[in-house]
Amino acid sequence: MAKYQQLVDQLRAQIDARIWQPGEKLPSLRQQAEHSGLSLMTVMHAYEVLESQGAIVSKPQSGYYVAPRAAAARPRPPVQAIEKSHQADTNSFVFDVLQATRDPNIVPFGSAFPDPELFPQRQLMRSLVNVSHHLKPTDALNNLPPGNEALRKILAQRYAQQGITLSPDDIVITNGAMEALNLSLQAVTEPGDWVVIEHPSFYGALQAIERLKLNAIAIASDAEAGMDMDELEQALQRWPVKAAWIMTNRHNPLGFTLSRARKQQLVELFARYNVAMIEDDVYSDLYSGHDKPLPAKAFDRDGNVLHCGSFSKNLVAGFRVGWVAAGRHAQRVQRIQMMSTLSTSAPMQLALADFLSTRSYDTHLKKLRQTLAKRKQLARHALRRVLPDDARISDTPGGYFLWVALPDRINTTQLYHLALQEGISIAPGQLFSGSDAFNHCFRFNAAWPWDARAEAAVARLGALIAALA
Amino acid sequence: MAKYQQLVDQLRAQIDARIWQPGEKLPSLRQQAEHSGLSLMTVMHAYEVLESQGAIVSKPQSGYYVAPRAAAARPRPPVQAIEKSHQADTNSFVFDVLQATRDPNIVPFGSAFPDPELFPQRQLMRSLVNVSHHLKPTDALNNLPPGNEALRKILAQRYAQQGITLSPDDIVITNGAMEALNLSLQAVTEPGDWVVIEHPSFYGALQAIERLKLNAIAIASDAEAGMDMDELEQALQRWPVKAAWIMTNRHNPLGFTLSRARKQQLVELFARYNVAMIEDDVYSDLYSGHDKPLPAKAFDRDGNVLHCGSFSKNLVAGFRVGWVAAGRHAQRVQRIQMMSTLSTSAPMQLALADFLSTRSYDTHLKKLRQTLAKRKQLARHALRRVLPDDARISDTPGGYFLWVALPDRINTTQLYHLALQEGISIAPGQLFSGSDAFNHCFRFNAAWPWDARAEAAVARLGALIAALA
Repeated sequence: MAKYQQLVDQLRAQIDARIWQPGEKLPSLRQQAEHSGLSLMTVMHAYEVLESQGAIVSKPQSGYYVAPRAAAARPRPPVQAIEKSHQADTNSFVFDVLQATRDPNIVPFGSAFPDPELFPQRQLMRSLVNVSHHLKPTDALNNLPPGNEALRKILAQRYAQQGITLSPDDIVITNGAMEALNLSLQAVTEPGDWVVIEHPSFYGALQAIERLKLNAIAIASDAEAGMDMDELEQALQRWPVKAAWIMTNRHNPLGFTLSRARKQQLVELFARYNVAMIEDDVYSDLYSGHDKPLPAKAFDRDGNVLHCGSFSKNLVAGFRVGWVAAGRHAQRVQRIQMMSTLSTSAPMQLALADFLSTRSYDTHLKKLRQTLAKRKQLARHALRRVLPDDARISDTPGGYFLWVALPDRINTTQLYHLALQEGISIAPGQLFSGSDAFNHCFRFNAAWPWDARAEAAVARLGALIAALA
Repeated sequence: MAKYQQLVDQLRAQIDARIWQPGEKLPSLRQQAEHSGLSLMTVMHAYEVLESQGAIVSKPQSGYYVAPRAAAARPRPPVQAIEKSHQADTNSFVFDVLQATRDPNIVPFGSAFPDPELFPQRQLMRSLVNVSHHLKPTDALNNLPPGNEALRKILAQRYAQQGITLSPDDIVITNGAMEALNLSLQAVTEPGDWVVIEHPSFYGALQAIERLKLNAIAIASDAEAGMDMDELEQALQRWPVKAAWIMTNRHNPLGFTLSRARKQQLVELFARYNVAMIEDDVYSDLYSGHDKPLPAKAFDRDGNVLHCGSFSKNLVAGFRVGWVAAGRHAQRVQRIQMMSTLSTSAPMQLALADFLSTRSYDTHLKKLRQTLAKRKQLARHALRRVLPDDARISDTPGGYFLWVALPDRINTTQLYHLALQEGISIAPGQLFSGSDAFNHCFRFNAAWPWDARAEAAVARLGALIAALA
């Protein structure tokens, strides 16, 4: 057993035995290192693990304290500001969960990415080889922000196919949608500003808000209809909100796709309150049915919507290329990018432009959607068989996530830890909230092949849930 | 002429004619759009151009104002806090200068990058092709932060060759050194914290400080000896400084390389005051003489130094791969990266690992250093011939920058604009300072082939300087 793990176990036992009481200060890192003879790094690692497990909490400039016993779930106020301490705990937990999904021995139901075997690996390689042969020394300069011109033109053409007229100059190529979203948020806020998010919401939004020292207002969102519009307007009236971070298509984790009318309503509402709308639309190509749903950006009249997209969920995860159609904020986004990462790598931009101009992208996407739809249906049936009758599984079309609400008494963070010990990951509801409101829910990634291993893992998950119930 | 440019010219003429007085508020964007019949986007663009030219300034939540007339240079106090307003102007100016160096028709003496023709293009392509053929769908996951393991091992081995023992786990692969430096600064500060920088310093440091809402203390730095150690200690005593951003080898723009004793002294001083030391060492491989100078990181006992490196200045600019050996801050850096860009692209990391493991890197570096040394000498002689006798040109070995101090009466921002009209860029001193202290200096990039075009451009620069003097 690793040294840090020994210290973790030892401290957990001491906390359980009430040698350290809830709220009590633990020995400092240096004191602990001296007592134990372990290195400072080892002690720090152990404390971080304990913190991520929720056993201890750190207070800046003070030290580590035993966590208070979990409070009983409180009724949620209609409009809710995120508690900072809860947020920091969740943040740390997110990294643990992400780390677990990287281990190939763990069944990745908790992963955010689809099965990479679904991507057109050989065609991508061909584009990369093609580009490698034609790289020019000056390519570094030519692909600086706002990014490769051919790639921006192709993106503008894809918008045009949906009837959305954008200049390629409004588009900034980024290091994945993660950078696009973060740059967008930074472009339209200052520390201390208020931001509206959905509840539950993508943990990346919660993390960005914490990182940029913003205040979040989480608006109750329904698995099918999205944000409660009354709550939203109430929040806009009460708080000086600067930005909203919204998913309009294939919401992560809930699954809803907003209607055209609702998208338009949101754009108009945010424009009226002078709130910048950051539209996270990374699952837009994983729709169900015949037509790709419009983004809210389609209803944007004055460049107020920053529409963020990505190739990571539907074409290739490792290239790290995304974009933002940033409207009137494009120059500011571009400048912040030049200050923080300078640019996206030239060969990756060129390779994507090469691939996209070959036209096989849409054929690939169609096949991808079909496969994902089948896998999702199989996963849904399998889960239905093993879950308690009063569990609810979302039934929204498209994408590859299922959102499962178990009976209230079942804690999915506990379930996560138990399942992980058996080599299965899930994404517990705690990741998607600054409160305990979704601690009985989890997100299930259904993008994986439905084989004996998956079947067995779902059965085991069912057994663990039954044991917890 | 573009519509926005017409508005720019019109407003400049009005400002020159004192129709709008210095300090006076301009019509709002909407008012201007209504008056002129131009779109809001066009008006905004024009205002941004005027702002970047220093003709007008924007005040948050208030509007645009005609810039005050440039104040006479003030005597610099020994320890200096950067003025915010000056900083914002400079920031905008930096983007203009960067933009100008991207135009292939402009002689790029103002560029920060060396001539990309000096890079081993064919070998890099071969590595990229090689990697393309062996890309695996799972590579995206395997190269998430802290980054590709083989690449981190190679970096750790290169540190080991200098006698510096680092674990590959202390190293985080980043989107260029720009991300490494920004993540480092963010990992060790909170908004409002104080940071020590050199004066003059790399404009990226000034921008990062502004972006992260930090306060800078600029310590007078000598072109040969670096920071004034008395001023530095005085600053550490007076202010609650959290971090220092320092260049130890081939300082940009001054050119100095600190002695081993001075590096050790800095590490010990910062450790004593509990100040995290961010070491910007992107020119470390462009040394002169036989041995590569040690970084300050070599004297770091407790993981307090975050040593940032890059391949962009000595191997390939467009890949956007750098790293930070972040000591005890490594996990925090890694987490902030996962929250802001997720990771560096997998094929780029793999291609670099492939290239570096072929051993031709050191041969390339040796040749690169020789070529740069020759070019720099030629450039220095050419400048000496055309500059006034009382101009000073730095004479520090290694790298590819020359730092030129003209007589005080010559304003290099003015020189920059005049030279740009004739297709020549320089990096004026204003970029490297939050004050006017270096407005008579400029940085000259000597990495370009010394041909008739360069010769003619230097002659023209000399004539412009003579005219200004």
